[in-house]
Amino acid sequence: MSLPISELAEDQRLRAGRLLEHLDQRRLNGVVLFDRSYILYYTGFAFIPTERPIAFVMNNQGHRALFVPQLEREHAKANAQVDQVSTYPEYPHDPHPMQHLSHLLREMSMLEPGAVIGADNDGYPWIFGYRGVPLSEMTGQDIRNVRAFIEDQMMIKSPVEIAFIREACRWGDVAHRLLQDYTAVGVTETEVSERASEDATRVLLETLGGEYRSASEYYYGAMAGYRGQIGRNAAIPHALANNITFEPGDTLVTGAASSVWGYNSELERTMFVGEPNDAQRHYFDHMLTLQTLAIEALAPGRTCGEIDLIVRAYYEQHDLMDFWKHHVGHAIGLRYHEAPFLDLGDATVIQPGMVFTVEPGLYVPSLGGFRHSDTILVTESGAEFLTDYPRDRDSLIIPL
Amino acid sequence: MSLPISELAEDQRLRAGRLLEHLDQRRLNGVVLFDRSYILYYTGFAFIPTERPIAFVMNNQGHRALFVPQLEREHAKANAQVDQVSTYPEYPHDPHPMQHLSHLLREMSMLEPGAVIGADNDGYPWIFGYRGVPLSEMTGQDIRNVRAFIEDQMMIKSPVEIAFIREACRWGDVAHRLLQDYTAVGVTETEVSERASEDATRVLLETLGGEYRSASEYYYGAMAGYRGQIGRNAAIPHALANNITFEPGDTLVTGAASSVWGYNSELERTMFVGEPNDAQRHYFDHMLTLQTLAIEALAPGRTCGEIDLIVRAYYEQHDLMDFWKHHVGHAIGLRYHEAPFLDLGDATVIQPGMVFTVEPGLYVPSLGGFRHSDTILVTESGAEFLTDYPRDRDSLIIPL
Repeated sequence: MSLPISELAEDQRLRAGRLLEHLDQRRLNGVVLFDRSYILYYTGFAFIPTERPIAFVMNNQGHRALFVPQLEREHAKANAQVDQVSTYPEYPHDPHPMQHLSHLLREMSMLEPGAVIGADNDGYPWIFGYRGVPLSEMTGQDIRNVRAFIEDQMMIKSPVEIAFIREACRWGDVAHRLLQDYTAVGVTETEVSERASEDATRVLLETLGGEYRSASEYYYGAMAGYRGQIGRNAAIPHALANNITFEPGDTLVTGAASSVWGYNSELERTMFVGEPNDAQRHYFDHMLTLQTLAIEALAPGRTCGEIDLIVRAYYEQHDLMDFWKHHVGHAIGLRYHEAPFLDLGDATVIQPGMVFTVEPGLYVPSLGGFRHSDTILVTESGAEFLTDYPRDRDSLIIPL
Repeated sequence: MSLPISELAEDQRLRAGRLLEHLDQRRLNGVVLFDRSYILYYTGFAFIPTERPIAFVMNNQGHRALFVPQLEREHAKANAQVDQVSTYPEYPHDPHPMQHLSHLLREMSMLEPGAVIGADNDGYPWIFGYRGVPLSEMTGQDIRNVRAFIEDQMMIKSPVEIAFIREACRWGDVAHRLLQDYTAVGVTETEVSERASEDATRVLLETLGGEYRSASEYYYGAMAGYRGQIGRNAAIPHALANNITFEPGDTLVTGAASSVWGYNSELERTMFVGEPNDAQRHYFDHMLTLQTLAIEALAPGRTCGEIDLIVRAYYEQHDLMDFWKHHVGHAIGLRYHEAPFLDLGDATVIQPGMVFTVEPGLYVPSLGGFRHSDTILVTESGAEFLTDYPRDRDSLIIPL
């Protein structure tokens, strides 16, 4: 284990430095970001968004501030890579947090006649009952949307980020191995999922120790479970499928993941309870070929759309489009889905440092779903598996 | 158990009917909503937001449509209370989903010269790497923000909604009882939390049966755990506090909740491992008095701000403002925090049918945090506890 924890802060500082270059090029007088994942990306500060606004602010001199409610002050001071933590008492309070934010921007010399400020949104979004005026109205400044630049930047993972994603993949793999081991005829989906997730998380904590941080809004540690048994239960609504008992003949679609300092992994497998029949083998084998085709096609210089077209050509050649439901995959990082997408409508050129899930699926009514998903790094020479789990049919049979 | 499951669809239809009246009053030619909780509120359709846009659309004739990716079609048809489910193939695809949405609005006669459309946001928000043009640009229509109306509507819970929140409180109570029972010197926070949450969820499922739906983005069933042992661990960062071992003398702050068809509950208690010392008793007793004061003050006709001011006066009279960190509480419903807020900056008049958490806290450096939270319904005559759990000190001591 050589997780570059001590290099993370410097990596975040470099990321903010590139954003500063963008502000300079666009002659923006600073930037205000409200999006949770952008704040995590530039500062390392993880939080669960609520009605209390949180913002990352950087002026055109590169001075970085985190704007938080007083409640988050200690947490922010301990965890955020910024030059300053600025607080407001409470939301909505009086004066309103947006007035405090406006005051901070003035202190940071961002409010000047005619100046334009970059932002990801014109004010804090109205979530959890939050209400407030737009940033443009509060400050009197023009606001320019900088999301496209940030999304482009986040697409290319640094070596430090790749190390964290690789570690997250490792723990997703462990959770999946336990899930497969615990699955058997007569036990329920829920008990197997909970046991595998608990045990994998315990081993993760014992291995990474007290330094471990999840930084996920959704969970802590590693998890593995079933994403609906799409076969015989296809007609049963979602929630009910959460506690069914495994039976011989089931086609299973799994999902396993981990969050390591906010970086996500994704691993999914199609498994069978007992030996698959001819139809199950037929669709499994096509699915595996589709995934291999996509991974082999994933190379720098191609566009994301081309990968989807290559895969779709196989669906069409083999008369499988009736079983198609979604594109080939998506990027993954601080968000478990992010841009770019391996989709015919995405013209992004694939580059080294991008990390994708590759997961073409087949969904066969009354038989089941067939999908593997792996987390794949694009390198100079092609594609590298970050997940490491058997993909072949024989390795994925639950013995009776 | 008399959960009004069969009345939920009609309740959702009536809610949409009131939104239609608002469209009529404001002469809006229809409405487009992207917010997950608004869609759940008007249609009953629960989903986890991703880069694939989902929208609720209603025209000025009250015709209701849900706009979803093809992937969600069956789920939407089975669960959404709408007249029509409209799909697009995939995101980003070509043409882009916003072009499909624009086409749907045209079909629904919402695109007319000079017409104004209501929306919660001018286009799908750029989450998970989504990119798309604003709704105004795509349709050429003026867009008016209707969030304030929706937030006002959601504040007053219907009898059906109150029944679901009451049920959620019941399962939070069960989870908390198990949490308290399992907590002991020498065991860890994580194992106790997981065991209590698992066991409570199992009993919930056995009781509510296959009909149960969580409809939460975050979890399934009921849960209980520790929200940081604020006492001796005050200086230890968040994540590490996730797996500490209970010791005599600890001051504990718990949290328990459940999600029942998307409706949330909140229950929190301050507990002690072994008999509390003088200082622990001192702050506990002040906290309990603060909470009682707030609950007794909670009556129709007062403003939310007044409740906060009444409570703050007690903090000030007793020289406790150094230990104040946040306002008295927040509303709760389909979101675990929502408006209005029991905060001096919130002038909303309290009305029957509002549901609040009441949770004034004291945070004492090097000693710990002291906070109870209960979920409270405002009635014609005052306040009613929906959570039902002992609040007194003696009931909240973990025996050595």
